Amino acid sequence: MDYKTYRERLKKCSSLLEKEGFDALLLVKPANMFYLTGDGRLCSFAMITQDGEVALGVPKTDVEDVKELAVFDHIVGFENEVGMIHSIAHYFKNFGINKGTVGLEYTFLTQSMMGMLTHPHAKPKEISVKDCTNVMSQLRMVKDNEEIKLIKGAAAVGDAGMKAAVESLKPGMTESNVAAEAEYAMRELGAEEFWRSYVCSGPRTNIAHGLPSNRKIQTGDLVMIDTHPIVNGYSADICRTVCVGKPNEEQQKAYDIYLEAQQETIKKVRSGADIGNLEKVLHTILQDAGRGEQIFGPPIHGVGIEFEEAPLPPGHAFFHGEKEAPPLPANVVLAVGNCGLYTGKFGVRVEDTVVVGKDGPEILTTYKRKLEI
Amino acid sequence: MDYKTYRERLKKCSSLLEKEGFDALLLVKPANMFYLTGDGRLCSFAMITQDGEVALGVPKTDVEDVKELAVFDHIVGFENEVGMIHSIAHYFKNFGINKGTVGLEYTFLTQSMMGMLTHPHAKPKEISVKDCTNVMSQLRMVKDNEEIKLIKGAAAVGDAGMKAAVESLKPGMTESNVAAEAEYAMRELGAEEFWRSYVCSGPRTNIAHGLPSNRKIQTGDLVMIDTHPIVNGYSADICRTVCVGKPNEEQQKAYDIYLEAQQETIKKVRSGADIGNLEKVLHTILQDAGRGEQIFGPPIHGVGIEFEEAPLPPGHAFFHGEKEAPPLPANVVLAVGNCGLYTGKFGVRVEDTVVVGKDGPEILTTYKRKLEI
Repeated sequence: MDYKTYRERLKKCSSLLEKEGFDALLLVKPANMFYLTGDGRLCSFAMITQDGEVALGVPKTDVEDVKELAVFDHIVGFENEVGMIHSIAHYFKNFGINKGTVGLEYTFLTQSMMGMLTHPHAKPKEISVKDCTNVMSQLRMVKDNEEIKLIKGAAAVGDAGMKAAVESLKPGMTESNVAAEAEYAMRELGAEEFWRSYVCSGPRTNIAHGLPSNRKIQTGDLVMIDTHPIVNGYSADICRTVCVGKPNEEQQKAYDIYLEAQQETIKKVRSGADIGNLEKVLHTILQDAGRGEQIFGPPIHGVGIEFEEAPLPPGHAFFHGEKEAPPLPANVVLAVGNCGLYTGKFGVRVEDTVVVGKDGPEILTTYKRKLEI
Repeated sequence: MDYKTYRERLKKCSSLLEKEGFDALLLVKPANMFYLTGDGRLCSFAMITQDGEVALGVPKTDVEDVKELAVFDHIVGFENEVGMIHSIAHYFKNFGINKGTVGLEYTFLTQSMMGMLTHPHAKPKEISVKDCTNVMSQLRMVKDNEEIKLIKGAAAVGDAGMKAAVESLKPGMTESNVAAEAEYAMRELGAEEFWRSYVCSGPRTNIAHGLPSNRKIQTGDLVMIDTHPIVNGYSADICRTVCVGKPNEEQQKAYDIYLEAQQETIKKVRSGADIGNLEKVLHTILQDAGRGEQIFGPPIHGVGIEFEEAPLPPGHAFFHGEKEAPPLPANVVLAVGNCGLYTGKFGVRVEDTVVVGKDGPEILTTYKRKLEI
């Protein structure tokens, strides 16, 4: 991204801050910092004023590295937690912010981080704080062309990781071994990191968050593989369920109906669509098949810098500090199929990363959707 | 672990809750839930009363899986976030808790999770909440024999991962490729998962949290590899810095003094030692070598279910919701060497997992400490 892109993002940010009544943002979530400054890392902060001024505080060891990556030049290095608090105070003073409202990331901040950022030595007394989760979501929700290109890159890496994992499958392997195959292949192709890689098998496919275990895969098991590579700072989300050996009728039936529900939902993705209605398309097909009780979790979420970000369907959005999403604009990127179907004995899930296009969906993850391998 | 172990843990927990004035704990941090119930997972909660009663709430998909793993049988499955809130209310009622003080994990809970756990539909009005971070740390700090055995297992896997990574090094590889080699080898040996794997090289060794990037390693670069496998629920922490090619004098000097500081600190690890004094041993050697300005971060922390847990040196403990640690009892497990030395051009770090023994340290991670490979 060039300097101009960040200036444009800041301009939009300024208007939003004015509209929503924030004098500044005090960000510590790497994804948000990365979006607005070009650099996001742990144990750091960014202060963004309504006037579009930007300042960063980072561990003193990291100053040169941040200078290379961030597009702005107010950067201080701090020694430790006390130094971080003093750096925040310094910037409040420097920017002349001594009253008003500052936005904090309530869905990211722990109670103890909140304590540091609002410490009396950091924050002037007259400043009040308010959640800015939704401000950042509004900014990040619609992707520009460069971002779409990066997400496409991540999706191609996700496809390759899925291929490597599926082709490696054989009885006796552990779930963790399968994750190793997927991640090794994705790192070879440029994944710098991963959000969680889920691999679960047999009865473990019935759980909501199938982090890999040392369970050994057996013939006849379903294996659910759900990966989220990060490539050049952007992510994709792909999940496939496959059977080791020949699937039985019960497995195939559950898979077929879930795949149908997911594909029919994807077909309805286009600009102007309502995310709540898209959720309903998926749910209705499963309910009509008598499987309403087997659904769990939000079937759709945004994808971008994070593998799971706004927009979310209305019921879930509230608990994640989000407002209800608007009718989907073009160039929002979604993962469709995130929920899964859980029969009690086993679960199935198929999930793809999809760009909201003007006239329909553009599906970015393309690895074959087939239970039998 | 057998049922008896958990009953003993709960007994200690009950005494602590009484002493510290808590009527119950409402836990959501997987590591804490795992310690007290045998199961810890995302999007779940455990309620533990002062009387030693235990109840779990998990996604409805996960009930059978949790039954297999948790040693207690109050388990409800919920449908979604609203269901989770109602399950909490149900247990408060069930256990007759309608006033008093309930402990929450302030260093883990985001503002939005805090909002859910203290939602008026979850928590009776007369109940107040208070941070219980330190209660859990007091419980988990001293490891029993079974836990030490598990951490030894994780340390052996960490050693093997380090060997695989170091032996794979060659110019042109990316940092991410090196992480792939380490993680692949560790998964082969039973790592189910990892806390972050740090791999950084060249000038990037100077940053505090060197998550792997696609930077290509060059001849003459230092490479810092810091891994944290999870094996059967327990972790180890090992870091090595090595040079690709022959190290120059400046690199070798920085490495030698850091290794000396780390090793001298390890020698002083024994029961009764003070963690603040151990920090001072490491700092003093570096300060005396004129490198006081090159230190960053806490040099020591605990290791157990998490790769980084209590105890922490006093200056850092406060900001992590911890109390100052007592003189170290036997069977605390530490990582020594966590801070690193940062010269501006490059950094060096050597870190090992060490058991606090009655008469001295038992070093669990043993891969060779040598800059030149």
